[in-house]
Formats: sequence, C-alpha cells, structure tokens
Amino acid sequence: MAKKDGKKKRSPEPRTRPPALRDVLRVPEGERLDLTAYDAKAVPAGPTDKASGLAATAALAPRLADLQDRLYASSTAGDRRRLLLVLQGMDTSGKGGTVKHVIGLFNPSGCRIRAFKAPTPEEQNHPFLWRIMKALPQPGEIGIFDRSHYEDVLIARVRELVPRSQLGRRYAQINRFEKSLADDGVTVVKVFLHLSYEEQRDRLLERLDNPEKHWKFSPGDIEERAMWPSYREAYEIALERCSTDEAPWYLVPADRKWYRNWAISRLLLEHLEALDPTYPAGDFDVAECRRRLLAT
Amino acid sequence: MAKKDGKKKRSPEPRTRPPALRDVLRVPEGERLDLTAYDAKAVPAGPTDKASGLAATAALAPRLADLQDRLYASSTAGDRRRLLLVLQGMDTSGKGGTVKHVIGLFNPSGCRIRAFKAPTPEEQNHPFLWRIMKALPQPGEIGIFDRSHYEDVLIARVRELVPRSQLGRRYAQINRFEKSLADDGVTVVKVFLHLSYEEQRDRLLERLDNPEKHWKFSPGDIEERAMWPSYREAYEIALERCSTDEAPWYLVPADRKWYRNWAISRLLLEHLEALDPTYPAGDFDVAECRRRLLAT
Repeated sequence: MAKKDGKKKRSPEPRTRPPALRDVLRVPEGERLDLTAYDAKAVPAGPTDKASGLAATAALAPRLADLQDRLYASSTAGDRRRLLLVLQGMDTSGKGGTVKHVIGLFNPSGCRIRAFKAPTPEEQNHPFLWRIMKALPQPGEIGIFDRSHYEDVLIARVRELVPRSQLGRRYAQINRFEKSLADDGVTVVKVFLHLSYEEQRDRLLERLDNPEKHWKFSPGDIEERAMWPSYREAYEIALERCSTDEAPWYLVPADRKWYRNWAISRLLLEHLEALDPTYPAGDFDVAECRRRLLAT
Repeated sequence: MAKKDGKKKRSPEPRTRPPALRDVLRVPEGERLDLTAYDAKAVPAGPTDKASGLAATAALAPRLADLQDRLYASSTAGDRRRLLLVLQGMDTSGKGGTVKHVIGLFNPSGCRIRAFKAPTPEEQNHPFLWRIMKALPQPGEIGIFDRSHYEDVLIARVRELVPRSQLGRRYAQINRFEKSLADDGVTVVKVFLHLSYEEQRDRLLERLDNPEKHWKFSPGDIEERAMWPSYREAYEIALERCSTDEAPWYLVPADRKWYRNWAISRLLLEHLEALDPTYPAGDFDVAECRRRLLAT
C-alpha cells in the first residue's frame, strides 16, 4: 500500500478501472517492513469520506451474499473451496467490529467464527497449530479467525513465552501450514488492522468513559500498550516473513472504522470473485419431478 | 395460538397492551394437538401485512442487538445464561431462511449455529443427545439449531429407525435433558415452523423452476412429502409431549415468510427481555486508569 512519504507512480496510460485493492494493500514478501511508514488514517484507494464509505460498503453487501451462496451451493457438489479471513491487530484495532459489520453482511449459517484467547491447558499440551486446525472452515464456508496462530509469533515473542530458536522455526511452520491450506482449497486472506498509537489511546479512553464498555477494559490493557514498540516489531517480522503468494498479508489502515469495513469487504469480494463459484447443476429430470409434484 | 375455528375469548377488561407473543403461540403442555386445526397463513398477533411486517422486524433489530451485547458482556463476569433457539419444521418450512433473516439481525460473533444432518457413523455410535450436547451455546451466546434432537423422534418415528419402545422413552429423555439445560442457565426457545401442504408444493416447484436453486432440491424430497401425514402425526406427538414450562414449543405460522421472521424475532426479544442481562461493573479504578492512559 502507499506509504506516507511514498512517491506516487504515474501509470503509463490512463486506467479505465482502478487497480484491485489486494494489489494496493498487499504486504510485499520478504521486504523489510517499517510500519511507522504507513499512515493508519490513510485511504489509499476507494472512498475518501465516511458517507461514501458507508454507502460503498452497503453496496457490496448483496454481491458478497450472492457469492457466499454460490460458494456454499458449490460445496454440496463436492467443491472443497472455502475462504479463511484472519484478523490480527493491536488491542482496540477493530477485530470484533470487523466481525460485526463485515461478517454481518453474510448469511450467518455459512460463517464459522472463532476468537482465539490465551491457550487452555489442553491446547498448550499440543503443537500450536492444533487448535487452529480444529477451527478451520469446512468446504463452502467462510471462516473467520479473530486472532490466530500468529499470536504464537506475536505475544509469544514479546512476552518471551518460547525460546527464540523455537520462535524462529515457527514462521516457516506457519508458511508450510498455510501452503497446505491453499493446496486443500482454502483461500487465506490475512488482514493486519493497522492502528495508530494515538487512536488506541482514544479508544481505550472511550471504553473508560462509558460504563457499558467497562467490561471490555482491563488495567492490563495499559501494560500491554506499554509494549507497543515490541508488538510493532513482532508484527513487522511476522508480516514480512509470512506474506506469501499462497497467503498474503494485507495492511488495512484501521483508524477510520468506515474505511476498515469497506476495505475488508472489498478484499473479500475480490477473493470471492476470483473463486467464481457456480451453482451446481441438478442431476435429476426436472420435467419429471415437476409432473410428480403437481400430482401431490 | 388461535385455532382456525377457535372461539375468541373476550378479555374481561380492555387491555392496554397486547399479550406477549409467547403466550399466543405457545403449545399447551400435555393437550392433544391437532395441527390441521391451525392455519399456516394466520397472523395471530402483530403485523397483518407484508410491508408492516418487514418494518416491524427491522424495528426489533437494534433492541435484539443491544440485548445480545448485554448478554455476552454479562457472561464475561460469570453469568452462565444463554439462549438456544431450536428450529424444526417440514422441508422448505424456512429453517434456513430464519437463520439468514432473523439470526442475521444479531452480531455473528455471539451466535453458535449448528445444522444437524443425518447422523455420521461416529454420532450413531453415541446416545442420540451426544452430538447435541457438543453443539450447545456457551454462556453469553445465542445458539441456533437448524433441526435438532427432535429428529430422533420425528424421522426416527416415521422411518421406524428405532424400536417403538425405545422411541417412547426418548420423549422423557428429551424433557429431562432440556430441564437440565434450563437449570444450567439455558433459555430454550423451540419453534415449530408450521407450513401448509400446499405451500410446500409451491416452494418445491419454485426450486425446480430456478436452476440456481436446483442444488437445494432432490427427488427424495417428493418421497418425503408423500409421508406428510406421518410427519404431521410425529410432530403432534413431539410437540404435545415436550412443550414443558422449562422448554415450551411455539407454533409459528410459516406460510408467510415475513410473518415467520417477525414472530421469531419477537419471541427472541421477549425471552431476552425476560433475562434482562446487564453490563457488568468494572472492578478497577476508572480515574486512576484514565490518568495512567493519558500519560502514555
């Protein structure tokens, strides 16, 4: 995506349609990533104000629902394809809000949502990908991870929960795992919700100022916030090492909620359109069935 | 609910507000039930035409979402309460449509949806309630069963999948199971989608006439339809034996989709309002946290 101070490349010819958002927001593979170079308030493509952003997101809803219906229908005829949206970001970056406002555009019966918390004792007794594999979407479904296996290279790194050598192996393990998902028909869409340090303060204060939001707050959030630079570094490493062709990372500016919702809706649309799922043909005699039904 | 030919009871005094829908639609416990006496096109309470029905349902949405948010918030402070919506009805009665249009009004992250199909070999090796228990909502969640343990006294009875003596014991097993759920804080809302024989024919024909809906059709649906009277009888027995105080059955006229959606939304609202979940108070010093945050 466009950096704060990046020079805009001029297209050699006038474009008839804007570039795909996935090309705009994709984190390049293997390049050193500096998150401070990206503006969390940016609107690098698409709508530029709240009213048009809300309208643009609403306009995507029927297309998303239609593609989801086709994807699900196709699975009933043996198509194993499905989509997995992975949401990561600092506290208050809007993972829950994305599920509510973006996943809320889909038919809930085809969505498999899982929020990952600190591992249970049982989960800790297994390899870190064990609980992930159990939560994967089934063919035809849209899976959503609110946090994911990336916590095992994020908080695990910041809090030094595992030895550095073990941590180092995990990036490759993750890449192999995600490649195996792609091979099995899973389109993996990984979204990093890029929030600014200032916006996080405002959102935490908002929770404190509203007694109906106190349940979302814990003083521990302030201690986590104190480790912001360590988390940012952990994200930079995870994003640059694990943005692969099979499962790229997308960097979504998240200070503006309406832009975040539009961008993720649009990313999902582009990936679902690329799958181009089709309704399976019936394997029965329609005229014959009609006749039999009309006789009842 | 009001029967086709039922005499309307006159209230002794003029009512200032309409009766709760749960009282109107509730199936009486232990009384002989004759489903043919109920009009599947009826609008026994609430809106009486499509436009006002759609508007009334949309008007419930923010209240439902608010109550769901409170229920979830409350669970983070140890409240074990949750709601389980059980959907049963003949083929095409609108179980899937209810999930899409009614459950779609909620935040998807707090919904746990499970569609029960024919039991897998593993499920068949367990008692019939085993797979049900694994799919229950967690505290704070809204669970939705698209079909349920009632299939084990419906299709199991019609297709004679188990000996009649075993079947007879299942009603009591179900009642004990549902009582144990209630004791554990689960509000069980069981909805029978009451569809007419004629409307089912129309809906099956609609699927045949639209190639994009062929995947929802199977010639086996016509064979199932031929057993309509047996299914109706199985429903009558299940509903009258298992409409208990702890887990009543509601009979929702389902020929009109807009009425079905309004009625189920309204039933959920009444049950959530009765729970009256509240946001938990924070156990931290707000002023102190504010001060610490502002210093970051």
